Amino acid sequence: MGEFDLIARYFHRPAVRNPLGVGDDCALVEPGPGMQLAISTDMLVEGRHFLSTVDPVLLGHKSLAVNLSDLAACGARPLACTLSLALPHVDEAWLEGFARGLFALADAHGCDLVGGDTTRGPLCISITVFGEVPRGGALLRSGACAGDDVWASGHLGDARLALEVFRGRATVPAGVFAAARSRMEQPTPRVALGLALRGVATAAIDVSDGLAGDLAHLLRRSGVGARLDVTAAVNLLQVGVDGVPDAAQRLDLVVSGGDDYELVFTAPAAARAQVEAAGRASATPVTRIGTIEAEPGLRFVDAEGRVLQREFVSFDHFA
Amino acid sequence: MGEFDLIARYFHRPAVRNPLGVGDDCALVEPGPGMQLAISTDMLVEGRHFLSTVDPVLLGHKSLAVNLSDLAACGARPLACTLSLALPHVDEAWLEGFARGLFALADAHGCDLVGGDTTRGPLCISITVFGEVPRGGALLRSGACAGDDVWASGHLGDARLALEVFRGRATVPAGVFAAARSRMEQPTPRVALGLALRGVATAAIDVSDGLAGDLAHLLRRSGVGARLDVTAAVNLLQVGVDGVPDAAQRLDLVVSGGDDYELVFTAPAAARAQVEAAGRASATPVTRIGTIEAEPGLRFVDAEGRVLQREFVSFDHFA
Repeated sequence: MGEFDLIARYFHRPAVRNPLGVGDDCALVEPGPGMQLAISTDMLVEGRHFLSTVDPVLLGHKSLAVNLSDLAACGARPLACTLSLALPHVDEAWLEGFARGLFALADAHGCDLVGGDTTRGPLCISITVFGEVPRGGALLRSGACAGDDVWASGHLGDARLALEVFRGRATVPAGVFAAARSRMEQPTPRVALGLALRGVATAAIDVSDGLAGDLAHLLRRSGVGARLDVTAAVNLLQVGVDGVPDAAQRLDLVVSGGDDYELVFTAPAAARAQVEAAGRASATPVTRIGTIEAEPGLRFVDAEGRVLQREFVSFDHFA
Repeated sequence: MGEFDLIARYFHRPAVRNPLGVGDDCALVEPGPGMQLAISTDMLVEGRHFLSTVDPVLLGHKSLAVNLSDLAACGARPLACTLSLALPHVDEAWLEGFARGLFALADAHGCDLVGGDTTRGPLCISITVFGEVPRGGALLRSGACAGDDVWASGHLGDARLALEVFRGRATVPAGVFAAARSRMEQPTPRVALGLALRGVATAAIDVSDGLAGDLAHLLRRSGVGARLDVTAAVNLLQVGVDGVPDAAQRLDLVVSGGDDYELVFTAPAAARAQVEAAGRASATPVTRIGTIEAEPGLRFVDAEGRVLQREFVSFDHFA
């Protein structure tokens, strides 16, 4: 199968929400009146971001999910995406599965695949997503204020637990592993929550490198610090105490785990009811895990109000 | 150097023309009133699209140039780009050179780098570009009509000549090789010509896989055919008769070469003066090389009007 047959068979579908999709030199996308285009891009490389044995359906899902998660963190509504794919060879079963996983998630979010590129090379997936957000209404990392609450969506740490099991560094019961693995291989981008938080949250970021590292980005951009409630945070691990009995290990997974694709965001204490309503409206759990403070830095505080004297690392591809 | 230091040092520059650049979950881009966003993406893989020995400055230039060429083919004005980069290791000299080549071309076109991703992996460069074009005014592949002239910008075939020399399949004098190599390593995206052809050209495509293959895409999308003047086409080789004395080889290079990043476009015969004015206004040579016909297919006609009985191939990553 040639390059153009491959594109035609697996990736050429009519654009539904956009003026021009796959098949010309460019795609054409047009945000609505008063809207700006939010753009994000993520690259996934075999052996770094996924194992060669991963189900291609799940990989198609995850490749788009990690990008949609960035739109969610800006409160942007997905419009379109492009896909560039380097493939070592044409494996039709793999392509069929990958496309199926990708389009299932794209369709669920009304996100047209409007263009891309296909080449031979080491397996590498590069997706760019486009969303629309009202001018001046994007959720940025820079808006957190002292006194704001810190919130997290969903669950944190389970994806990292699955990775530790794959690496042979942790052993858990089969049911726990299955739950954690599903979080790692099929993350849920919190697009509906991001939309519901427009005008409510003061700042937001998605958690891809770990809670501590990503929240630190938000704090630096906002010029503030935070105190995190360790007791609340540790409970964000979906598999819970039964899955990981050791409390210190649970905290490590939650705080330094990464690959979560949840939102961490801030909102005024006066907006707690609105945040909870946004969670309900988007069917997404939201948990209050801390408070923004004027003093820079990130402090972890236990149930007795004591500051933990320890460092948490965050993921870095080149560290 | 860590991932975030790397981005800060080499790729984090303030967005000039766009509301929000590098540093948040998404960038924000906003086309002007009445404008649509034209989007294109291209991926370059080491060993497929470039040799490991290529000067990183030239590679930075070319990685963006091949993308801007797609905007040119739509008549879009560049606004912004994103860069995803998989790197086997952090080589500061390479990064400095790559960024310098990329930004020099980006600055020449007012194209902000607004976002991206950096990861460890086999060297792979994925760039997505954004341009703006008046609603309904994009140059598409689908507008060619029987009777239109077929035009080509600049020169064709020289990049392929350089590749053949690198592959040991051709031998040419050093001066000829230098000229051809420059065309291969530092192509000129025809952005100004694309803008000048808005409202003049009826269809356009950029030549990346070879004149025959790319023109065939345009013909299929327009539901027409074309007759190409072999005598006019063969003269598009920049290094000319002295560079490649064999006429059949020259024709092969021009018609099947690829990696040219010139525009091939169509315009009514009544618009010849306008096309020539667009060429002058953009300081870009334009050459009339054929005629659109109602009968599908691509025919090559010699000086005596005889149709050549031969096939030309076009580049395909998976053929």
